[in-house]
Amino acid sequence: MAPESNRKIVLAARPVGEPTPADFTLETEAIPATGDGQFLCRTIYLSLDPYMRGRMSDAKSYSAPVEIGGVMVGGTVSEVMASNHSDYGVGDIVFGYGGWQEYSVSDGTGVNKGNPDLAPVSTALGVLGMPGMTAYTGLINIGQPKAGETVVVAAASGAVGSVVGQIAKLKGCRAVGIAGSPEKCRYVVEELGFDACVSHRADDFQDQLKAACPDGIDVYFENVGGKVFTAVARLLNNFARIPVCGLIANYNLTELPEGPDKTALLQRQILTHRLTLRGFIVWDFADQAREFATNVGGWIGEGKIKYREDIVDGLENAPQAFIGLLNGKNFGKLVIRVGAET
Amino acid sequence: MAPESNRKIVLAARPVGEPTPADFTLETEAIPATGDGQFLCRTIYLSLDPYMRGRMSDAKSYSAPVEIGGVMVGGTVSEVMASNHSDYGVGDIVFGYGGWQEYSVSDGTGVNKGNPDLAPVSTALGVLGMPGMTAYTGLINIGQPKAGETVVVAAASGAVGSVVGQIAKLKGCRAVGIAGSPEKCRYVVEELGFDACVSHRADDFQDQLKAACPDGIDVYFENVGGKVFTAVARLLNNFARIPVCGLIANYNLTELPEGPDKTALLQRQILTHRLTLRGFIVWDFADQAREFATNVGGWIGEGKIKYREDIVDGLENAPQAFIGLLNGKNFGKLVIRVGAET
Repeated sequence: MAPESNRKIVLAARPVGEPTPADFTLETEAIPATGDGQFLCRTIYLSLDPYMRGRMSDAKSYSAPVEIGGVMVGGTVSEVMASNHSDYGVGDIVFGYGGWQEYSVSDGTGVNKGNPDLAPVSTALGVLGMPGMTAYTGLINIGQPKAGETVVVAAASGAVGSVVGQIAKLKGCRAVGIAGSPEKCRYVVEELGFDACVSHRADDFQDQLKAACPDGIDVYFENVGGKVFTAVARLLNNFARIPVCGLIANYNLTELPEGPDKTALLQRQILTHRLTLRGFIVWDFADQAREFATNVGGWIGEGKIKYREDIVDGLENAPQAFIGLLNGKNFGKLVIRVGAET
Repeated sequence: MAPESNRKIVLAARPVGEPTPADFTLETEAIPATGDGQFLCRTIYLSLDPYMRGRMSDAKSYSAPVEIGGVMVGGTVSEVMASNHSDYGVGDIVFGYGGWQEYSVSDGTGVNKGNPDLAPVSTALGVLGMPGMTAYTGLINIGQPKAGETVVVAAASGAVGSVVGQIAKLKGCRAVGIAGSPEKCRYVVEELGFDACVSHRADDFQDQLKAACPDGIDVYFENVGGKVFTAVARLLNNFARIPVCGLIANYNLTELPEGPDKTALLQRQILTHRLTLRGFIVWDFADQAREFATNVGGWIGEGKIKYREDIVDGLENAPQAFIGLLNGKNFGKLVIRVGAET
């Protein structure tokens, strides 16, 4: 039976600081026609990721912002329901950027066909998708971890951090996580096999981190910024590498922190410790997609990389889940189940 | 006739902010004995360089500080006056780190023999020495300039900056200098062949810099920091590389600038523009000394790299000359002539 209407979540207002539910609107519309060379996708899973906070803002960044009234962007796993495209048939499972909605029409741009027999299809949004590839490419290309070195990553139980630490272990490094609760820290050590994990909410966070890194820090995979960076910075060794992947602690800032201006301290540290800081987004390494899929897919198959998903049911719950993500409320890769797997 | 006494300049006090003449003391002592395996050097030229400000401080850095009462460190060109070392004979010209004094005794550690027929011996302290190699290794390894890109360097008439820009031109780049006076800027463009040079003391410095870099900035060779960095940062292109070589504008800071704390702005820019910032000191690339000497020596021989020296006579004038260096009073590589060339 052909579906008749599409529910979608659009950007209602640009957030000031932390997003609120009022910044999103759930709308219902007729499903757009599937034109020549197009196919209709039914969303099964929608990925929620920190980068989306940037798209809600019109500050200059590497991608254009979502327009007010536009569908929120997001990676999706979908089923093809109708097709006027020779490469896609009804029932195909596809990975793409369908956005925060139940149905989307595609011409195939940016879409890949999935093989549901290889791994659960939801992993295309996490460990085998953009977050996993972010972890892999940032760590390998910029972090360049060597056996015996200490690799630190924050949001260590999350979609990116969990992969960073497990790859660091596979490379013979000491992997130290930073997470937001003792429960997450236990998971990171006991399930993922990190050597240590400390909670950034602990009163003695700096001391705990120092104790967890007795030989200092050689690679810091940066995805939070803020006070976590300050604590890490004190422990960085000479020639440390810092892939700058995200700055979630800063995304909701409405004004700069009080002074003094410590920029000169960071510059001095870069110089005297000969640090490398390099920002990246995963698509800068798009040509490594096959290498990533082969290696990380292989490690998952061998049980050497584990992952955890935090699945929330219902498109209508996406805004609240996303707001929680920015506050570390999720535990594992956050995914919205928009529709049933077939 | 054997010399009898040695004049030396020692660190009298650690400067608070800008060094003053009272932070240095000129002392006279008997010349130390030349022991077995040692040789006695008479200083001809003493190099003055910004890094020495760091050695006057006991803040943690990549090198140990000069002790109070200790001879100020510095690169030197010297003549061997007496020798109990089989590799060095009387009359040899040697490059080393004799420090701010007329005579020094060496066992050969860190000393290289020079060939005065190749180039004026003073160039061993500048274009063919540590500053030139700093420019070469930082630009080539970290800056990685590609033909058609825009390379910006501050202190462009100085020992390092002048070489950075000229190599950038040889690599097919647009070279834009920043200097401290219209006279220096004229020299940088007319004599060194940069495409443009702007004075950071101009009221409309930011606008002038923007006009000089119509396609933005791909490589910024950082040796000043402060407001020059702020102006450059606004013009950095995606994937820009920033070798962090020095931060002379910060060296005399006694307290951090007023707030707000703009560290988060720098971090955001690193992320969204995928910048690479990497600190280095020349000895990190010690294994490239021969490549540097071959290439830069060759370019000098072909007239493709020019240099300018600012020679001040008399060891006793070193403190004032050094204080001036930190304020951009020199014009070209600052060298103290301690004794006559033979």
